Amino acid sequence: MENENIRIGITPGDTNAIGYELILKAFSNPALSELCVPIVYGAPKVANFYRKTLMVDTPFTLINSATEAEGGRLNLISCTNNEAKVEPGVPTEESGRDAMLSLQQAIADYRNHLIDVLVTCPIDKKNIFSDEFNFIGHTDYLEHEVGDGQEALMILMNGVMKVALVTTHLPLKDIPNAITQDKIERKIQIFNDCLKRDFTISIPRIAVLSLNPHNGDGGLLGTEEDSTVKPAINAMREQGIQCFGPYSADGFFGAGQYHHFDGVLAMYHDQGLAPFKALSMEDGVNFTAGLPIIRTSPDHGTAFDIAGKGEADENSFRQAIYTAIDIWRNRLHQQEAEINPLKIISPERDSKAYTQRTTQNDIQ
Amino acid sequence: MENENIRIGITPGDTNAIGYELILKAFSNPALSELCVPIVYGAPKVANFYRKTLMVDTPFTLINSATEAEGGRLNLISCTNNEAKVEPGVPTEESGRDAMLSLQQAIADYRNHLIDVLVTCPIDKKNIFSDEFNFIGHTDYLEHEVGDGQEALMILMNGVMKVALVTTHLPLKDIPNAITQDKIERKIQIFNDCLKRDFTISIPRIAVLSLNPHNGDGGLLGTEEDSTVKPAINAMREQGIQCFGPYSADGFFGAGQYHHFDGVLAMYHDQGLAPFKALSMEDGVNFTAGLPIIRTSPDHGTAFDIAGKGEADENSFRQAIYTAIDIWRNRLHQQEAEINPLKIISPERDSKAYTQRTTQNDIQ
Repeated sequence: MENENIRIGITPGDTNAIGYELILKAFSNPALSELCVPIVYGAPKVANFYRKTLMVDTPFTLINSATEAEGGRLNLISCTNNEAKVEPGVPTEESGRDAMLSLQQAIADYRNHLIDVLVTCPIDKKNIFSDEFNFIGHTDYLEHEVGDGQEALMILMNGVMKVALVTTHLPLKDIPNAITQDKIERKIQIFNDCLKRDFTISIPRIAVLSLNPHNGDGGLLGTEEDSTVKPAINAMREQGIQCFGPYSADGFFGAGQYHHFDGVLAMYHDQGLAPFKALSMEDGVNFTAGLPIIRTSPDHGTAFDIAGKGEADENSFRQAIYTAIDIWRNRLHQQEAEINPLKIISPERDSKAYTQRTTQNDIQ
Repeated sequence: MENENIRIGITPGDTNAIGYELILKAFSNPALSELCVPIVYGAPKVANFYRKTLMVDTPFTLINSATEAEGGRLNLISCTNNEAKVEPGVPTEESGRDAMLSLQQAIADYRNHLIDVLVTCPIDKKNIFSDEFNFIGHTDYLEHEVGDGQEALMILMNGVMKVALVTTHLPLKDIPNAITQDKIERKIQIFNDCLKRDFTISIPRIAVLSLNPHNGDGGLLGTEEDSTVKPAINAMREQGIQCFGPYSADGFFGAGQYHHFDGVLAMYHDQGLAPFKALSMEDGVNFTAGLPIIRTSPDHGTAFDIAGKGEADENSFRQAIYTAIDIWRNRLHQQEAEINPLKIISPERDSKAYTQRTTQNDIQ
């Protein structure tokens, strides 16, 4: 199989949250590890704690290095505190630190080409935040560590739609200043590139939401639509990108207009994610687009309230695995297709030939 | 029938939008006018224009005053420009002015006790705005004109949930300053009173959303949760109101937590209405709570893009009629029930008696 060797680095996130539960449940079906080489960055004692507590007897194989990983089984590298006191539901200094260690080891292996893609389980942003980890979440961290100067774009996706965000984890009061024409243009550009490269959509159609309610109601409810959002859309359209809007968020989702677009660009977190998750039915995936690394995660948080109770639904995590595999494959196909492109000798002649052909067809 | 005489004032909103279409389609089924006395504030020529254009032959009866209105038929009072040039899809000065005239006449009749409730079709906020109509929408106007010193609360409702808003039609940048502890407390209080009086829920459970994404993530994504929202919730709980939160908006809607509450209080327009409408399936109703007047409307806007084409769905408008009738009935029942309340002679004694009874039950 062409994807037999996709090596997926998996981080369990906060060890007192639901990460281990998601992993154990998802890989309790052996079919999933047949699809890839899964490598978990954690600790065997912690994994065993959750196996016993949750009575999920998914076996795992302890390995010393990612080079030893094999498909058809769940590989585990011990890189976090094996003697950690596991307290499901309680974010502790230890659980935050282990989340960081796991992520750092996975990224080190990614840099050494030992894993191909990264699937992360939820972290507690406040808990992992420290002098050593000065980032608001995975996206910022990856952009900084392995972004290669590229800008990340947060995309939430399910079977029906892909929603990307211009601003992500910001206090509401900081959003208006963070939204600039230049930023919207960059996000549209990254979104467009991603839809083409990662999802093989030749000419993506992108809907852009308005910053203010009711699309600013002609200036009555805000001026940024005219000063910032529309100029950005127009500029990108001039560059040949099929982007449209701005659309009032409530009407857009209410009328199901997302069915008509390949992507929806929301201005801020709750505007895009509240309706997305309302509609996503536990299969939503968070994809960090725009970077060389392919990273996906389930679209939910740490869920400390149900940690260790066996109530977590692993479906979104499983979808995150599938999505990472799909994107990896698409990028591979794209690269292969571009190795020997056909040369266009004269665009003008091609155009004439096309006119002739279509005219002939008309006559027939 | 007990609601035979409910007189419903209906305003068609912007005459170049879909208001007339909604009215004609909804009342094409005679069953609806059997339920109430519908009184449309418009113009016969405009109504006829839409009847012909849309080929909906709903009959109406022209009356001179609301006193002549009868049930079982669609009554029309001519109070807007009968010679108006109707241009479906184009908001004009004339169509905005007619929307205002219609509303003013309906409110005048409400003041004279000639109608019981008001159902409004969408207006264009920018188009109706003028020196004479200096309000951002129906809610502000009604609060000012017939609010009797009460504060309005915008509620969007369907069969699954009721979402109320702390702030309504504001530019995004003005929201953080508009959210104060005092304001949240007042809105919780009004919401609670409304759920009891208008929807006969004895002890309503209210969920309050956070202002910032991820509930502020422990202060990392904003401080208003700790400084403003939580204190407001605590203060209202001390007064005996069952309110909970704050909840992160995306997780709340994603996990379907709205199923566990009678009402959801969102901090701003798109946060509450984008997910609400995403889930509302064309049966959403906008209810202006907190005022003496009962006013409902469909949950969608003017839809100029489909005006005059026969494509408008009247279901939300029909639900607005039903909802107004339901609330009117509930208020009536509530008033009747409160006319002769049983006197509590001694709360202390009652409490003792209760303890005794339950203890006895325990023994058995």
